[in-house]
Amino acid sequence: MKINFTVGPAALPRIAIERAREDLVDFEGTGISVVEQSHRGAAYERVQAEAIALLRGLLAVPDTHDILLLSGGARTQFAMLPLNLLTPGTFASYAITGYWARSAYDEAAFLGDVRIAADTREPDGGYRRVPGPGELAIDRDAVYLHICSNNTIYGTQWRELPDTGAVPLVADMTSDLLSRPIDVARFGMIYAAAQKNLGPAGVVAVIIRKDLIERSRQDIPKVWRYAIHSQHKSLYYTPTMFAVATMRHVLEHAVAIGGVSAIEATNREKARRLYAALDARPELYRVPAAEDSRSHTIVTFFLPDADGDARFLAEASRRGMVGLKGHRTVGGIRAGIYNWVSLDDVDALVELIAGFRG
Amino acid sequence: MKINFTVGPAALPRIAIERAREDLVDFEGTGISVVEQSHRGAAYERVQAEAIALLRGLLAVPDTHDILLLSGGARTQFAMLPLNLLTPGTFASYAITGYWARSAYDEAAFLGDVRIAADTREPDGGYRRVPGPGELAIDRDAVYLHICSNNTIYGTQWRELPDTGAVPLVADMTSDLLSRPIDVARFGMIYAAAQKNLGPAGVVAVIIRKDLIERSRQDIPKVWRYAIHSQHKSLYYTPTMFAVATMRHVLEHAVAIGGVSAIEATNREKARRLYAALDARPELYRVPAAEDSRSHTIVTFFLPDADGDARFLAEASRRGMVGLKGHRTVGGIRAGIYNWVSLDDVDALVELIAGFRG
Repeated sequence: MKINFTVGPAALPRIAIERAREDLVDFEGTGISVVEQSHRGAAYERVQAEAIALLRGLLAVPDTHDILLLSGGARTQFAMLPLNLLTPGTFASYAITGYWARSAYDEAAFLGDVRIAADTREPDGGYRRVPGPGELAIDRDAVYLHICSNNTIYGTQWRELPDTGAVPLVADMTSDLLSRPIDVARFGMIYAAAQKNLGPAGVVAVIIRKDLIERSRQDIPKVWRYAIHSQHKSLYYTPTMFAVATMRHVLEHAVAIGGVSAIEATNREKARRLYAALDARPELYRVPAAEDSRSHTIVTFFLPDADGDARFLAEASRRGMVGLKGHRTVGGIRAGIYNWVSLDDVDALVELIAGFRG
Repeated sequence: MKINFTVGPAALPRIAIERAREDLVDFEGTGISVVEQSHRGAAYERVQAEAIALLRGLLAVPDTHDILLLSGGARTQFAMLPLNLLTPGTFASYAITGYWARSAYDEAAFLGDVRIAADTREPDGGYRRVPGPGELAIDRDAVYLHICSNNTIYGTQWRELPDTGAVPLVADMTSDLLSRPIDVARFGMIYAAAQKNLGPAGVVAVIIRKDLIERSRQDIPKVWRYAIHSQHKSLYYTPTMFAVATMRHVLEHAVAIGGVSAIEATNREKARRLYAALDARPELYRVPAAEDSRSHTIVTFFLPDADGDARFLAEASRRGMVGLKGHRTVGGIRAGIYNWVSLDDVDALVELIAGFRG
């Protein structure tokens, strides 16, 4: 049994995997596999509706917002979002806090007028923090302001989500949706690829204010219109059925263990123990993320040199830990401690951090 | 055990489902699930490359063409295709032979100049056939001519693929790719959502001539550029990993049973037996598809009235057959007899057709 700190696609609950295996043989008593079902059949439609209802309940999504389950991941939303909302003559604002936030901005720039509300890039090209309250230029005429709530390459996170007033806040929450309670009413749109906290890769959850759907463009291909997917209850095209059905099992498990508040309490404790272990040995470990921007789902750190990183990774591997190598652009160590990584798993890493001889 | 004639997502080989179940527990000896792997890890990259190599071998795809595995399905390609190739000042031709062919045309019309090369719509709104050789208006200046090779709602198929000369032929082969040998060199692009003959829903295979990739637009979002996915070997975004890994098992099985020629031989025999049983009782069954356009992967037929259809479906259901109800827009009976529906499965339906009292 491995201990999986992969940054994504990430570890899923055992029970969800077991139920997914059963779905592959006999889905909902139909006698055929989940991957051999019509998506127009009653069994699949019910399960997809359940997945959406579970997500609505867990995040307390108000009636003002619709929930869509679409194919693809966050990158598809980088383009669909401006295609739908960045109508000619308008502009959108983007806060740049890392590679993914920047990628969302770059894609939107192919489709319309985009402006930078903040950019926390360091002189060395890296990112250590998210903007403080006074650093975000909020232009009241922007059709939305986009942030990436958690930056997986750098281990930084918007611990407090910004107040954008009347400007719709749009957040890529791929790597922290469902990890903490949020007030969905404050968002114009949230999107999250499934493969961190929600389920297998291939599906992206989009939570969007209904009035923004109504205002979105109608002169674009139907397959890219939020309005079409809303009208068709996310069955306009054949969905990524296995991923959605498995998401249902993941979300049922999330409810069973007490919902998002309970999940957050564990996540806080996981992050606290890891950062405490790292901070206790400043001569050996360096955490690049600024203290008030430290992510609770991704912890990045460096040993004094690349040889130290390599020795640490080798020892971790010997102990059955996988997925700890830092992103190829920055190096070092990176631990994904998403929802389904247990406190015991984290304690195994804490033990290694505390006892490692360097 | 059900006999599954679902039109899609369709039946898959038992052995592929069994191997997919194993992948969910321990993927390629990594000790973690296929849905918990980094797509940048060696195990997944190798498996995806294998899936692509198997598809190349099975279809004898020449070096002039690239194979991409993208997220989503055919509808995404309805829009990506013209977005990439229908550059300003050019036009594309579409042959309309049914709902899906028409949908591809409608999507392209949001993005550029599209013209109709043929339309076989009947006065009653239905479609019974594909165009004959002289009916297709091939404009030499078109950037491509698009067809849908098999029309799932009407049970019609291009039994002979058209010769479009120097105009690149683009085909949506979602419902018949891998069902018969094709000369890929004759195509500019072929695309096929996986969920008929290739694997689980959520991934679409795109086989595209490399010079068309080179000519495609660079001023569109990266996520929708064929060139980007080609450069990144279909790892630009997190792929629908479970679907791709399972496709690999399906394609391995296709090789094991003798490849596409052997598959076609069985498919021909399946179709022959079904149409023969229907044609033997013209007083009870009506096959709407014109004789030279009859599909070998989808067989549609009607009893004398809707009550007859309903009684037939009830008897089929009693015998464990599922997925036989015709499309909601046309009614009647529809049997998907794709690659992984066996001759024995078809014989069970033939027996019902031959013996049904009406």
